[in-house]
Amino acid sequence: KTTHRIAVIPGDGIGKEVVPEGLRSLEAAARIFNLDLEFTHFDFASADYYLKHGTMMPGDWEEQLTGFDAIYFGAVGWPDVVPDHISLWDSLLQFRRRFDQYVNLRPVKLLPGVPSPLANRKPGDVDFYVVRENTEGEYSSVGGVMFEGTDREVVMQETVMTRVGVDRILKYAFDLASRREAKSLTSATKSNGISISMPYWDTRVATMAENYPGVSVDKFHIDILTANFVLHPDWFDVVVASNLFGDILSDLGPAVTGTIGVAPSANINPEGLFPSLFEPVHGSAPDIAGRGIANPIGQIWCGAMMLEHLGYSQAATAIQDAFESVLAEADAQVLTPDLGGHGTTGILGTAIAERI
Amino acid sequence: KTTHRIAVIPGDGIGKEVVPEGLRSLEAAARIFNLDLEFTHFDFASADYYLKHGTMMPGDWEEQLTGFDAIYFGAVGWPDVVPDHISLWDSLLQFRRRFDQYVNLRPVKLLPGVPSPLANRKPGDVDFYVVRENTEGEYSSVGGVMFEGTDREVVMQETVMTRVGVDRILKYAFDLASRREAKSLTSATKSNGISISMPYWDTRVATMAENYPGVSVDKFHIDILTANFVLHPDWFDVVVASNLFGDILSDLGPAVTGTIGVAPSANINPEGLFPSLFEPVHGSAPDIAGRGIANPIGQIWCGAMMLEHLGYSQAATAIQDAFESVLAEADAQVLTPDLGGHGTTGILGTAIAERI
Ligand SMILES: CC(C)[C@H](C(=O)O)[C@@H](O)C(=O)O
Ligand SMILES: CC(C)[C@H](C(=O)O)[C@@H](O)C(=O)O
Repeated sequence: KTTHRIAVIPGDGIGKEVVPEGLRSLEAAARIFNLDLEFTHFDFASADYYLKHGTMMPGDWEEQLTGFDAIYFGAVGWPDVVPDHISLWDSLLQFRRRFDQYVNLRPVKLLPGVPSPLANRKPGDVDFYVVRENTEGEYSSVGGVMFEGTDREVVMQETVMTRVGVDRILKYAFDLASRREAKSLTSATKSNGISISMPYWDTRVATMAENYPGVSVDKFHIDILTANFVLHPDWFDVVVASNLFGDILSDLGPAVTGTIGVAPSANINPEGLFPSLFEPVHGSAPDIAGRGIANPIGQIWCGAMMLEHLGYSQAATAIQDAFESVLAEADAQVLTPDLGGHGTTGILGTAIAERI
Repeated sequence: KTTHRIAVIPGDGIGKEVVPEGLRSLEAAARIFNLDLEFTHFDFASADYYLKHGTMMPGDWEEQLTGFDAIYFGAVGWPDVVPDHISLWDSLLQFRRRFDQYVNLRPVKLLPGVPSPLANRKPGDVDFYVVRENTEGEYSSVGGVMFEGTDREVVMQETVMTRVGVDRILKYAFDLASRREAKSLTSATKSNGISISMPYWDTRVATMAENYPGVSVDKFHIDILTANFVLHPDWFDVVVASNLFGDILSDLGPAVTGTIGVAPSANINPEGLFPSLFEPVHGSAPDIAGRGIANPIGQIWCGAMMLEHLGYSQAATAIQDAFESVLAEADAQVLTPDLGGHGTTGILGTAIAERI
């Protein structure tokens, strides 16, 4: 059997509390499905590391991580020590770009036992993916200021879309849609207002669609699309979006299903040239860090996505089923406070690992 | 008493059906509060005009409209005849830019009798404004394509923020917040990802805040802000945002309160150098146009905003109270189908005008 080398980076705050629970589930799944997962821990990409070294990561972080099959990531950010734009640009956003993790994949799913803010929706009604472009677009860092400090001051920032960049994310999304039952893809655009880059995006969607006659395609402008996430979340199957629009939709989707505290995300390099990275959507949560009450499901769900990515669908499904069934039972002794229970991170994590 | 000259542009589709109802309410309010409103109708900014003349508007539209105190606008867009990016860029977006309507003001309010998609929220819980920058930012039309048609193709579009443009919208929003009871302002940003223009926006917000010590200020990144619109819509009082973020938030807010079909918007030139424009958020709605069942409340609410803008707060409140009380009574004979009734545009419009 193949050995898979996993780099484990807990990061900051509750990252350090939920990662051990994620590993517990992964180890349980590895035992049952006879997988060989080898975990190596790293302390960088954290405020602790920054305090010691004055940088978020060592100079040779790329070499240190190259050769791993995946990165299992907690959360980064501790604003008391490092401003967010530094901690994030110098860690997470570097991983995405240098490891060419051009797909950011985020499931949006209404789960049993997780209260949704929406009236009249139940588990099963909502189950889709946001496929976000993760390396270019609106997150460009190209631009600057002119007439600085004067009344004429003007600030420009480029949105940069390349054919390579747009086509590969569209291909990933169309491939995903064509494997799913609904075979339906929604493109997020704003070509009625953003008059150069977004019409280009639309053109590439139309061109790519020709290769997938079995996939039905529609598009919405981002303004009405966010509205439809609230009004008709059941409409969606695979939603493909630029970096910024995908960022917005992949927070909004989990908010609508009540799962923002437990949503996972995968930063994927589909070609496997570089390690992909799996991290929960929630951050380091300074407000509850250190109290042992963080919900570990986001981290555990990330483990399922990682196994899926490594080719172990059955093991991934086992983890997914385990936390869904623990949620469905809604035992207050076991559930963490955010779910209305009085369990701890460890109690909930153990319950899920045992269920596997 | 002062005569106010109002340009009336019904536009396309249901615009032509709801504008007469809006005028009915305005005329009722004018009678009671003894206002002198003079209405002049224009047929341009419509597909009909386009069919006759091959353009959306006459060459001298600016001259024709200069001197009016306000534009009372229905809806534009009829994709069977003119593609949206033409009909909109060549009408609505021209008005905004040429008449320097740099404020786009949109109320978000949970109304009696309008079902909200959210569980556990009731009228009074949500009542805030989105203040959107309306002339620059992400809607720039500066940019282009290189290596067109090849694999190296790269498309750029600038976001352009000027100090003048940013400061004046912030000033408007802070002024509004300081007049309201909660005195609270939320800034929409994304400075953790969009690394040049959005940090600039944040700096200007911080600088402007110094002039308003009585206003409490917070900021959210746009991703989590959209999530909070769903999870905590009661948190907000005045939300100020760039052109794109404001566009998104002002569709999402009404979606969350269930009012997307009845929300109004004001495109304002606060200095009064040019006419301001008042239009419902809903579009021309080709699917229900011509059937007399469109809900006229968005258009009527626009009338209230227009009177407020002209300085007639009492008359504005009278219109607002009238449609809110008709909604609260929830008489199925009177309400339009979107509200669960079987009334027509005319029946509902008349009921509201009589209530005034
Ligand atoms: C139609 C479109 C260009 C417009 C915009 O994005 O400004 C609309 O969505 C709006 O909000 O008025
Ligand atoms: C922290 C931030 C830079 C990041 C992003 O915008 O990509 C986050 O919101 C995310 O979605 O992973």
